[in-house]
Formats: sequence, C-alpha cells, structure tokens
Amino acid sequence: MYPPRRTRVLGVDPGLTKCGLGVVEGVPGRPPGLVAVGVVRTAAQDDIAARLLAVEREIDRWLTEYRPDTVAVERVFSQRNVRTVMGTAQAGAVAILCAARRGLPVALHTPSEVKAAVTGNGRAGKDQVTTMVMRLLRMPERPRPADAADALALAICHLWRSAIAAPAVAAGQLSTSGGGT
Amino acid sequence: MYPPRRTRVLGVDPGLTKCGLGVVEGVPGRPPGLVAVGVVRTAAQDDIAARLLAVEREIDRWLTEYRPDTVAVERVFSQRNVRTVMGTAQAGAVAILCAARRGLPVALHTPSEVKAAVTGNGRAGKDQVTTMVMRLLRMPERPRPADAADALALAICHLWRSAIAAPAVAAGQLSTSGGGT
Repeated sequence: MYPPRRTRVLGVDPGLTKCGLGVVEGVPGRPPGLVAVGVVRTAAQDDIAARLLAVEREIDRWLTEYRPDTVAVERVFSQRNVRTVMGTAQAGAVAILCAARRGLPVALHTPSEVKAAVTGNGRAGKDQVTTMVMRLLRMPERPRPADAADALALAICHLWRSAIAAPAVAAGQLSTSGGGT
Repeated sequence: MYPPRRTRVLGVDPGLTKCGLGVVEGVPGRPPGLVAVGVVRTAAQDDIAARLLAVEREIDRWLTEYRPDTVAVERVFSQRNVRTVMGTAQAGAVAILCAARRGLPVALHTPSEVKAAVTGNGRAGKDQVTTMVMRLLRMPERPRPADAADALALAICHLWRSAIAAPAVAAGQLSTSGGGT
C-alpha cells in the first residue's frame, strides 16, 4: 500500500464583512497541521463591487501563496439573517470561482457537518468548535475573529471527510458543464 | 452645450439556471437601441463551481464583444424563494466581479425601479414589462426567455435613470440608486 498522500486544504468561511480563511495540511488518521489562518475584511460602506473585488484578490493571493490541493467552502443556508445570507452567498461564489478557475476541486460542507467533524456533535456551540480547533492544531491562542476559527474547522472537516470518502470517490472531480448561451 | 454621449449598458438579470443578458445603447431623451440579447443557462445537476465558471465565462465574453460603458445588475431581494435567492446572489456576484475587474461602473436596480422605469408602474406584471421592452426597442418578437427581456428592461432602466441623475436630478422624481451593501 502506498503511504497516504499529504493533502492541503483551504477552508473559507464566506462573508463580505469578514471572510475567514484557514489552511491545514495532513494525512488521514493523523492530527492535521496548521499552515495559515486569517481573515479578509471589507468595509460595509464600500461599494459591493469593490468589496467582492477585494475578497477575490485576497483569496487569489492565498491560493498562490499556500497552493492548497482543494478548497472547502461553507455551504450557505438561508435560515439565517437575510442580509447576512446575501453577503455570504456572494463571497462564497467568489471563493468557489477563484478555486474553479485554477482547476482546484471545491467541496461544500454544512455548518453541522463541520461541527460534527471537529467536536463529534453537529449542534456544538462556537466556543466548543474553537476549542477543538485549537487542540487539534496545537494552537497556543484562540484564532480571532471567530470566522478564522470556523475556516480552520471547515478545512479540518474536509480533510477528514475526504480521507473517509477517498477510496471510492475522486473527491471534487468537477463535472464539466456546457454553459453557453 | 456638448451633444449627449451615447452610453452602452449591459443589463444582467442574474440567475444560475438562467442568467439574462441584454445590451442597449442610447442618449438621454431618445429611444434606446437594441444591441444584443441572450441568456446563459447552466444545468441544475452540474457542480456549483462549474456553473459559476460558465456564467463568468459567458459574461466575460459579452463584455469583450459588446464593450458596454456600464453594467446594471438586478438588486437581489430575499422575499423570494430561498433557493432562487442563493443562485441569484451567486450569479449576481459573478456579474459584479466581471465588471469590476475591468473597471466598469456597476449599478444595482431593484425590480420595482426597473418596472417603474419602463412601464411607469413599479408593480407592473412581467407581460407588461416585456411589451414595453419590445415597443421601446422596436423588437418584432418577444425576447425569450423572460429573463432576457428582464435584462433589457434593466439596461433601459439604467440608461434612463443615469440620464436623469446626470444634470442635478429633476427634484424628487426618482431617488438615485447607488452601489449598496
């Protein structure tokens, strides 16, 4: 059997005001390693075009700098505050586009999948998620803001879930669409 | 006084399944002219990444081919069906990004602003909007699908509103639209 390949995942917790970014790397069955964590902020008073452009620029920079093998984006749900959902959907679309343009596989995970992956409980609170992220990545300090911790949790979730799914599915082999007018 | 400059507007009625695109050109106070109309379709069973990429590719192609001076995108509201809103927000984000990357101004107009602009009634039905679009652009046939007609209505709306806004605004006539959150 071949040794399991190291996989590097960029997790994106999408948002216009704060877009969390976290990169982890690992192999199945071992604790993941922290590569980078951060957040893109854009000002609410700025034009939507300028905000989306800033998010795109920063995600592109991360993809160039950290060269992840795959990108995991939070799957947006609509139960939440309606204004937030719009910004989340828009910023998420930018993240998905940036990855897809480079031919990187994109995976979407729901918040409860992420919580279940890192805490064992799909309804865990934010604090519990952050605590587990710190423990798993052996971080001495809480990642701030919470969006950054969420992005790391998402990346860990993807790393672990894809390890389970890997033998059967070539995760994220995107079906190519026709598109066209 | 200088003759008014011709302005070319790309209107985008955003959507993932169908994204309406319409280009009109005109000068203030004259009937606008039709340049192009069409729709980008992506298949619901396709990956979100492939779908957003297809929308981006096509909008980029339109921007290159028709060289609009400005891009008008429908401002998304959340009252509608929740699933639709997500796709609309995502496709809208792609359109805004494509324009912003080229340094083109982006304007957002609400559906009722568009209806008021082309029919005089902010609560006009779809049919009435399509009829007026055909009349204003002297089109012999109904643009299909409805998303294509909506994109043209949006472009006409922007052409007229920006014309009004230009010379210090006819007092209280129409509130000026802006970029937005």
